[in-house]
Amino acid sequence: MTKARRRPRTLRDIGENRLLREMLPRLPQRAGTVVGPGDDCAVVRIPGAKEDALFTTDPVIEGRHFTADTPPRLVGRKAIARAISDIAAMGGEPLWILVNLVAPGDTPLARVRGIFAGLIATAEEFSLGILGGDTAEGPTLELHVTGIGRVGRGRAVLRSGARAGDALYVTGALGGAYLDGNRHHLLFEPRLAAGQFLAANRWATAMMDLSDGLAADLPRLLDASGRGVRLEAAAIPLSSAARRTAQPLQHALGDGEDFELLFTVSARKRVRFERAWTEAFPKLCATRIGAILADAKQREILFADGARAPFAPGGYEHFAATGAS
Amino acid sequence: MTKARRRPRTLRDIGENRLLREMLPRLPQRAGTVVGPGDDCAVVRIPGAKEDALFTTDPVIEGRHFTADTPPRLVGRKAIARAISDIAAMGGEPLWILVNLVAPGDTPLARVRGIFAGLIATAEEFSLGILGGDTAEGPTLELHVTGIGRVGRGRAVLRSGARAGDALYVTGALGGAYLDGNRHHLLFEPRLAAGQFLAANRWATAMMDLSDGLAADLPRLLDASGRGVRLEAAAIPLSSAARRTAQPLQHALGDGEDFELLFTVSARKRVRFERAWTEAFPKLCATRIGAILADAKQREILFADGARAPFAPGGYEHFAATGAS
Repeated sequence: MTKARRRPRTLRDIGENRLLREMLPRLPQRAGTVVGPGDDCAVVRIPGAKEDALFTTDPVIEGRHFTADTPPRLVGRKAIARAISDIAAMGGEPLWILVNLVAPGDTPLARVRGIFAGLIATAEEFSLGILGGDTAEGPTLELHVTGIGRVGRGRAVLRSGARAGDALYVTGALGGAYLDGNRHHLLFEPRLAAGQFLAANRWATAMMDLSDGLAADLPRLLDASGRGVRLEAAAIPLSSAARRTAQPLQHALGDGEDFELLFTVSARKRVRFERAWTEAFPKLCATRIGAILADAKQREILFADGARAPFAPGGYEHFAATGAS
Repeated sequence: MTKARRRPRTLRDIGENRLLREMLPRLPQRAGTVVGPGDDCAVVRIPGAKEDALFTTDPVIEGRHFTADTPPRLVGRKAIARAISDIAAMGGEPLWILVNLVAPGDTPLARVRGIFAGLIATAEEFSLGILGGDTAEGPTLELHVTGIGRVGRGRAVLRSGARAGDALYVTGALGGAYLDGNRHHLLFEPRLAAGQFLAANRWATAMMDLSDGLAADLPRLLDASGRGVRLEAAAIPLSSAARRTAQPLQHALGDGEDFELLFTVSARKRVRFERAWTEAFPKLCATRIGAILADAKQREILFADGARAPFAPGGYEHFAATGAS
């Protein structure tokens, strides 16, 4: 289906990626910034501090990230877990959060108390302090969580570090995070220990978490690294929810909200890494799903029958008129 | 008018203050937290760092903090200026911000670009780095700005430091910040230099910024300090916008969005302080509007004719069914 060309007029016409491509380079920076906008977290060097500081902020909005039927405690849990997942994707340790709550005035108190109970339980689960935040009346229930973490000086794993020949891995299994009856998008475990293992031992050359789906997120890692990819379709680990559908691969590529880690390991460390991983995480798979290529324009997906196709961006994109691939 | 008593069922039934009184004590804390929730900023001590870190986060929501007609650049400006004002109220220096943008998909691109232009210009004006943030589709245009700042170790001025006998001051003039034709709520100057002066020289014993109106905010400072107040109505500096109305004092007490500093100075430093202030800020008034009393229950307002009345909380409160006094 072709679309009539016209000058973009609204956010929906350009989508989140183009908006950010336009705006990010213009944002002012200042001394102490190690990594500015565009990665899972910003990295800041505070004078005298032994470790680098990590900052991330994420919205969780009714109708988009949860529904009116979602148990309130799980709304609170998801809001924090998303921020923790961003810190995990840098190899960091989360320390504190701030929370903005926006809600209509007629929101039932029981729902608000349930959300706070979820925030408190999740903060306690991950030994986080809740530093505060703000509350305001608005038309829709929303939480905005800012996460503050730390990582060894210079040890944060960025999206931009992938090199030609690196092996590409993903933790866990992908797809169907919010299909009917699946609450993975609410109950996912942020891959904190895995991220810290990958950073502290310098295994990962590049890393990010999968929030918008492999088809949308992998190109972001490739663009940041200036590299291409050969993805092996048959290797992509499919969640049981995705496997129950007619098109499991489509769900694994396009659904989003997996909150698994996507990372690269240099070819010469590959065998040692896989041995060390299995020892450290006997119950969590890290699956090799492809290889990084030198040419940033060479991005392809190989199928089991030998067919190959260009690997084009897809997955979930905010504001975009066209949906997941 | 009396209201039938019934069990509170919605956010509106209890209002923001009661919600926070219920929730704040339950929020988990962790080592390194100097000041947790409930002040203008949280204060954190980072191992090795020479200064304390400040964190604050504020929502700016269409229909509440700005309208569809507000020039987009001023929406971006206000979102940052609110966070800077919170950092000023601790006596700190703002360094970085993160921004979450929520917007409907049909938001005109020109409006989004205008908001970013305002964010960028304001960040540059205050030498802030923009570390990133996130964008998401939602029903209403909103910005959530997290501010990161620093303050000399142990030098942050809290709401809780007011002592009996302290003089109570306010910068600038109050009221009518968003009356027709007044754009103070968009164009206010965060009192950064003043806040830093008050902290660095240990003039202020307690401080906060006035965002919800003197009648709502002063009780928060008094509650945090466990003190009372004798407020002199005739001394309260009235903005020219408030003076053009029939009830200027009501506007000065109840309107909110003044973003002036409210602070206390010990009685023995008062004369020296007023001299030093005038020298440092010849163009910005600091007006003495009352005195702090030992008894937290003794809160009164004196009028020029000698009448006195209890000084009861009021001003703007989110979610509350009853509005400004």
